[in-house]
Amino acid sequence: MSLTFETVSENRSFGGTQGVYKHRSQATGTDMTFGLFLPAEAESGPVPVLWYLSGLTCTHENAMTKAGAQEWCAETGMAIIFPDTSPRGDDVADNDAFDLGKGAGFYVDATQDPWKPHFRMWHYITHELPELVFGNFALDREAQGITGHSMGGHGALTMAMTMPETYRSVSAFAPIANPTQSDWGRKQFAAYLGADESTWAAHDSTLLLTERGYPGEILIDQGSGDQFLDLLKPEALAQAIAARRQPATFRMQPGYDHSYFFVQTFIGEHVLWHAERLGR
Amino acid sequence: MSLTFETVSENRSFGGTQGVYKHRSQATGTDMTFGLFLPAEAESGPVPVLWYLSGLTCTHENAMTKAGAQEWCAETGMAIIFPDTSPRGDDVADNDAFDLGKGAGFYVDATQDPWKPHFRMWHYITHELPELVFGNFALDREAQGITGHSMGGHGALTMAMTMPETYRSVSAFAPIANPTQSDWGRKQFAAYLGADESTWAAHDSTLLLTERGYPGEILIDQGSGDQFLDLLKPEALAQAIAARRQPATFRMQPGYDHSYFFVQTFIGEHVLWHAERLGR
Repeated sequence: MSLTFETVSENRSFGGTQGVYKHRSQATGTDMTFGLFLPAEAESGPVPVLWYLSGLTCTHENAMTKAGAQEWCAETGMAIIFPDTSPRGDDVADNDAFDLGKGAGFYVDATQDPWKPHFRMWHYITHELPELVFGNFALDREAQGITGHSMGGHGALTMAMTMPETYRSVSAFAPIANPTQSDWGRKQFAAYLGADESTWAAHDSTLLLTERGYPGEILIDQGSGDQFLDLLKPEALAQAIAARRQPATFRMQPGYDHSYFFVQTFIGEHVLWHAERLGR
Repeated sequence: MSLTFETVSENRSFGGTQGVYKHRSQATGTDMTFGLFLPAEAESGPVPVLWYLSGLTCTHENAMTKAGAQEWCAETGMAIIFPDTSPRGDDVADNDAFDLGKGAGFYVDATQDPWKPHFRMWHYITHELPELVFGNFALDREAQGITGHSMGGHGALTMAMTMPETYRSVSAFAPIANPTQSDWGRKQFAAYLGADESTWAAHDSTLLLTERGYPGEILIDQGSGDQFLDLLKPEALAQAIAARRQPATFRMQPGYDHSYFFVQTFIGEHVLWHAERLGR
């Protein structure tokens, strides 16, 4: 399997490099673009890496330009990677809704037409993109953390609980916390995974936490002024955390909404959380 | 004169509020939109304010979402205001070039048609918008600093040197430093101010610095990898600073380009620079 890539851009940032790279993905059958910030420390050897999964409608670019994460990754000597949220291209199935199709991969591998040929974001994020970045950049495969916002918080939590040996730290910003019980979830799972709801459970953080939990601590920030609280269902996840006695910090942040102003406010504490657990 | 405004949006950010407001401008004869971040301290009284002037093609939104300034303004208890860079609207003159017309007001008051009716960004920034914000928000009129990027760095430096009693601190990121000798300047001044070059001198930082200087210290950051060095002409301003013995810190930052990754890297130091000089 060829894991070549091309450099779209590289900008100096906080003493390191913010790059954007493009490659042909076997997983999605499309070109895929991702952002990768490397701190100065990467010049002298592999550094820990934080995966940042973005939310609905986002590309690799939103968090890269608006989250303000580079400052803190430079401070702690960590890399951060910003994948896209879905396959792109004219031959990729789409839907008029902003929350299905392009920009809305939901971090699952679709088993249903018309999504099946390209919508394989779970495999792309957990297997293919790691092969590419660990093979080509100074990143420490043994020091991976994962976080994300909204749909990306859902992706981060489900991946970390499914592959805790890979993701040694996990956090989330306003995650879609109980998608099997929400219009942000049921609609997409029905489309991508089909009518058999038993296949959905592997992609619901509240269910995963109830059944298996996570061997480390979990950090979750949620704004009390979030306009999507009814769809995110943080109360289900908070209840599950408490019921399982899962080591976790769940913070209801007064007045914050769902925007990147919220993410930006707390990104520093999240990066420090991961750095501490990844040995930085 | 009526100085009413409407709230477009308000988002909680770093314990304060990032607002976007719209108002009818007498100066430009159009609606104008600006961003204003208020730190938590503004709830108990007026706070110092930093004016951030943006560069070519920007609206109020670019720096507000990409510069990462709110973190540092919250840290120091300062407000920051992000004005637009030109009048907007269907009846406003424009040009196909990105560097003339909309998004390219160059912080002057146009005296020539077709620009004269609306392109009055100098008056808007230095007089009208201050009246509005000091009349409606908890901002300390006696504690104003000014900064900006590229065309906005040009605006910040020229305004500070012209009105040093108003702007008690000044800094710039990659300013257009000698516009009377650059294609970023000559073209726009000829269009907005006319063929008589004697009217241009009041809007050239290198000339202003040579003739009058600034009573305080000036901070300037410039990336050595900036793709627009030939147009910005930092060497002219650096020479003028040295020749006049102007108290200043001029930093050529190795490898940084003209992007917001550069601005974001150093915004913290600029905010702290202003806060120190504005008594925070």
